[in-house]
Amino acid sequence: MSHKVYQSLIETLHDCMMACNHCYDSCLKEDDIAMMANCIRLDRECADMCGFLEQSLVRGTPFAEELASICAMICEACGNECKNHQHEHCQKCADACFTCAEACRKLSQ
Amino acid sequence: MSHKVYQSLIETLHDCMMACNHCYDSCLKEDDIAMMANCIRLDRECADMCGFLEQSLVRGTPFAEELASICAMICEACGNECKNHQHEHCQKCADACFTCAEACRKLSQ
Amino acid sequence: MSHKVYQSLIETLHDCMMACNHCYDSCLKEDDIAMMANCIRLDRECADMCGFLEQSLVRGTPFAEELASICAMICEACGNECKNHQHEHCQKCADACFTCAEACRKLSQ
Amino acid sequence: MSHKVYQSLIETLHDCMMACNHCYDSCLKEDDIAMMANCIRLDRECADMCGFLEQSLVRGTPFAEELASICAMICEACGNECKNHQHEHCQKCADACFTCAEACRKLSQ
Repeated sequence: MSHKVYQSLIETLHDCMMACNHCYDSCLKEDDIAMMANCIRLDRECADMCGFLEQSLVRGTPFAEELASICAMICEACGNECKNHQHEHCQKCADACFTCAEACRKLSQ
Repeated sequence: MSHKVYQSLIETLHDCMMACNHCYDSCLKEDDIAMMANCIRLDRECADMCGFLEQSLVRGTPFAEELASICAMICEACGNECKNHQHEHCQKCADACFTCAEACRKLSQ
Repeated sequence: MSHKVYQSLIETLHDCMMACNHCYDSCLKEDDIAMMANCIRLDRECADMCGFLEQSLVRGTPFAEELASICAMICEACGNECKNHQHEHCQKCADACFTCAEACRKLSQ
Repeated sequence: MSHKVYQSLIETLHDCMMACNHCYDSCLKEDDIAMMANCIRLDRECADMCGFLEQSLVRGTPFAEELASICAMICEACGNECKNHQHEHCQKCADACFTCAEACRKLSQ
């Protein structure tokens, strides 16, 4: 049951998808939205990629390592953007992204 | 923080998405795959819908109730198909689907 | 071949998905981004729903009418938001959304 | 307008997504479904990846080349499986997959 092997990564991806979508939603409500444009953009990229990989792993995709490799890169980029902003949702999102990037890299090696 | 309101439903959707994708993966490996064609089809429909609604709720979609209403219908249909099959993955998937259908209906009412 | 029946709707959904994602991308680059927050949000909702329905129709989903019904509602909401803004990408997106809403309603009736 | 640059690739991805989903739907209705299990699986992987990349390109993803690289690999794998089967939908899907793999490789180089 391949999804059992990936159970921990799936939960990490799920947490990251939630942090990114919550950060996206919160950024759209911020007064300084003009400064958050790239954060909004990367939140969506990262949420979509994490959600995609999550589903792929559960259904036993033959492309787990390659998808994890690009997901790590997108998480890293999103985390680097988010950590520049002081909003609590951005800082939490950065943490979730870096944790997820690390977990994805372990699979892709 | 709207996704906190939906926290329980998001976890239920996540469980159902995993059960459906695992059932889909397992059905494709069964000897009696010819009997599982409709189960494979509905597993994918249900996994995709649950994954879609999950993401939508976290990002504060304005269409939560309407999406939950159709998700409930798809979960119900998938559960009804799965419960006809004796494979353990089908029985577990049926349970996850019925639980999720019930949770979605609560939101959509 | 069910996707032949839906060929025209699939192309309309594809056009709307592209218009919404292009409008989303363009709004994130506008100087008046603070006024575009709801447009960005609805563009993503609409693009994701159109992309979802498009794929569902091609693979012969048993839930075509119900999904088309909610897609029509989301397209209508996105079009109503977009038409309030004078940017060319917003006006084009509004047109694509209203065309798609009309096509979805025809299926869902 | 970045999606104009990618216009041709987006149409190729759209064609491949449709061919894969149609092949998936058709395989699930074949009498020899037991032989089609891997085709069904790869059709879904490929359709989902093409649909994902399509949306990403239109919204100006910063990860176009990397996503195109993995999409090329998935299209190639799906095409190689499909070409083994004599069903018309499999042969057409193989053609669409190889065309799409080639187009993705051009972007990713």
